[in-house]
Parts: sequence; structure tokens; C-alpha cells
Amino acid sequence: MGEAGALSGRLYGVGTGPGDPELLTLKALKTLQAADVVAYFAKRGNSSNARQIVAGYIRAGQAEEALHYPVTTELHRHADGYKAQIEEFYAEAAERVAAHLDAGRSVAVLSEGDPLFYGSYMHLHVRLAPRYETEVIPGITAMSGCWSAAGLPLVQGDDVLTVLPGTLEQAELVRRLGDSEGVVIMKLGRNLPKVRAALEQAGRLAGAVYVERGTMGNGSFVPVADKVDDTAPYFSLILVPGWSARP
Amino acid sequence: MGEAGALSGRLYGVGTGPGDPELLTLKALKTLQAADVVAYFAKRGNSSNARQIVAGYIRAGQAEEALHYPVTTELHRHADGYKAQIEEFYAEAAERVAAHLDAGRSVAVLSEGDPLFYGSYMHLHVRLAPRYETEVIPGITAMSGCWSAAGLPLVQGDDVLTVLPGTLEQAELVRRLGDSEGVVIMKLGRNLPKVRAALEQAGRLAGAVYVERGTMGNGSFVPVADKVDDTAPYFSLILVPGWSARP
Repeated sequence: MGEAGALSGRLYGVGTGPGDPELLTLKALKTLQAADVVAYFAKRGNSSNARQIVAGYIRAGQAEEALHYPVTTELHRHADGYKAQIEEFYAEAAERVAAHLDAGRSVAVLSEGDPLFYGSYMHLHVRLAPRYETEVIPGITAMSGCWSAAGLPLVQGDDVLTVLPGTLEQAELVRRLGDSEGVVIMKLGRNLPKVRAALEQAGRLAGAVYVERGTMGNGSFVPVADKVDDTAPYFSLILVPGWSARP
Repeated sequence: MGEAGALSGRLYGVGTGPGDPELLTLKALKTLQAADVVAYFAKRGNSSNARQIVAGYIRAGQAEEALHYPVTTELHRHADGYKAQIEEFYAEAAERVAAHLDAGRSVAVLSEGDPLFYGSYMHLHVRLAPRYETEVIPGITAMSGCWSAAGLPLVQGDDVLTVLPGTLEQAELVRRLGDSEGVVIMKLGRNLPKVRAALEQAGRLAGAVYVERGTMGNGSFVPVADKVDDTAPYFSLILVPGWSARP
């Protein structure tokens, strides 16, 4: 992808998988360890989730580039000010990575889960892939880590799978829950009560499973019908399995 | 998962990823090599795709159990006879694996891509997980391997992703293509002309990318609009990227 200058380094988007360091691929590990620079997004004052997953793999003395999100809690994420600020941040982050590439250093950008599937790496990819030689190493997605840890067969044969954000309106969630065999609902957080109501209304509550920290070792899996409280961390999700016509 | 007899072996569903042997996870490789028996589905007279992917990892002398599909080409897959025959086959395959587990041998069942995402392993899982200690090791899906190899950002933020089989009616494909930001269309084969027509009708032809052997080293990626012939192998797929509102 893109035209590479003779002396410029190579950009790698590296999927770190959903949390368990053993769920990195062999290629991701090799790429990460061979890179001159390891880069990752992080909230200011917080460590990066992706960096934490691969902490045990980083070489002693390996150069790192932390890309700290600006503090934007005072702005709603649909506000114009937020959009401008975050766009400026991504542009600056891309140039910081580009400076390494221009100096001939290869950069592995860590991305939790899979880089091109709701991954933060995408913001660098669209800005840099047209200019530098680029390779993306896929990762196990959070949803795949969760249904595997729960041992929950999700879709088979001609099943349709839909991945929905919990941020959708309740009526929209109901409609889509009735329109697909397998459903994954992400971005729960404060949306959990609405999502639970939508599952009930769509007649899909019975099979739905709530998963928290699915691949963190201390993960929990409960039927949504049995989850009585309304708290759900951002990285929790709900799985609604399909595959009704099992042979 | 399930209750384990004191002397029975453990069942592992092991995702081999989409084709490149380096896209196995560290955990999948470790599990595969530690297992007493490696099992896999295969068409009679053909080698197993999953077995081929991990060929370089199998220990010398490691026991193998090939589960050969019955020859059913003379029956349509919706015919009652087909269903009964394939159900009997899965039941027999499960009992062959169970015999190893009962003898205290651990069994790693290979599954191309991700075991619980359209994977053949699911047919053994639903029959054996209630009876034996079971662990599923996720794998990189074919679709994830393909969008990574193509460097195609698929979904971001609040995008809805839908995975569709190309077997759906054209009108149904059109409706669903208009109802989702990111779309993956699998099971192309003879359905390609219908799928192309649906993409055009839904106004999604421009962004759609056809991927063949996405992670096989000799993969090809062409805009669907530029693919003039109507041949598509079963494992090819079409990616329709979302993420229209890029910051």
C-alpha cells in the first residue's frame, strides 16, 4: 500500500487481540519485536490497554511513542469543537509517526483487538498508508475473544450476523434484533437498560449473554435476563447467538 | 464448560486463522502442539484446509483423527436425506472424538478461521461440550484476514457491521446493503452476478472490494466494479467498507 521512499521505514498496524497476551498471533509478536519503534494511543494519565497486553514482549530499550489523547471531557463528542480538536490530534499523531518513518525507522502501532475493526489505528492508517509502505497484522476481536471464552456458538451456515452499537435508539435496536440470526451489541456502558428492554421487546432476551472482561482471566458471563444491576463497563458486550437450525 | 470425568481428556477447539500459518495465535500453537490427538474435518479424497495451514507445526508422530465428510453430492443440501445423513455423520464424528477423550487423551479440533464463527468445529462443540471439559481458542476470521491484507478500514465508531451470505435473494441483499455501514458478503461462488447486481442497485458498488485468497500470499483484491468475470471460489468474499464520517 502506498509508495515508499527508499530510506523510509515501514508502518505496521499490529492487532494485540482482546486482552490475553497469548492471543496475539505469531506474526504480530514477530512484527512488534522487530520494529524500531512501538507506538500506541493512550488517555493522558492512563496506561494504554494495548501496551499493557504486550508489556511482556517489548524488548529492553525498545523505543516507544505514546500518543496521548487530548482532554476533551468538557466537550460532547458530537460538538464541532470536539471534532476539530480530535481531528487536529490525529493529524499531529500521524506526523509524529511519520517523523520516525522518514528517518528510516519501522513503527509498529499497537491496536487492541483488530486494527481495522473499530480500531484506533485506523486514524493513522488513512493518513499514512497513502504515503508509506504499510502492513496490517490482524488481531482477535473482542467479540471473538468473548464468544470463545463463553463457549457460545454464534453463527453457522446461512446465518446473518450484525454488530450493533448500544448507542442506537431502542426502536432501532428492536428492529435490528428481529432482522438477524446472530447479534453482537457493543458500547454498553450507560446503554445497558435500554439494550435489555430492546432484547425483551424483540423476544431475544432468552438467549442473550452478557460478557464482562471476556478474555482477562477474571471474565464473567451471565444471561442478560439474570443481570439485575445496570452497570456495564465500556468494554463489556452482549452476545445473541444464532444457529437455530442445527443439524 | 461441562463436567469432566476424572480421567477424561480435554477438548480444544483451535482456530487456525484464515490461511497464513503465522496468523495462528500463540495459544493456538501451544495447544495444538501439546494435544495428544489432532482432529479435523476433511472432504473425502481432499486434504483438510485447516490441517494444511498447521502442517509445519504438527509434532512428528502426533496422533491424528481425520473426520471425512460423507459423499453427498447427489443430494441437495436442503433435502431431508442430506440433513439426516449429515446429522448422522456429525454424531459419529463426535463419538470418535469422545472415544479419545474417554481414554484420557486431549484432542485439538482444528477449525479454519474462528471455531465458533461459521466453523465446522461447532458441530462437535454442541455435542461434546456438555459432557467434557472444553476450551475454545479463537482464530483470525477469513474476513479479518482479508480486510487486513487489503488494508481496508472497515468499521469505526457507531458503524453497524453486517455479515451476509451471498445465498440471500437479490432484493434481500439490496435491503440489507442499504441498512448497514460496513458489510461483508460471504459464500460468493455462483452467487457473484446476483451480488454484483444487488451492490449496484443499493448504490454500494463504488466502495466494494472483491477479495480472493486474501491471506494466502497470492491474494488478489479488485474493486467489484472492475471484476468482469463471474467466477468466484467459495472462500472469496466481498468487503463493503463503512466509516463514512471520518474525523
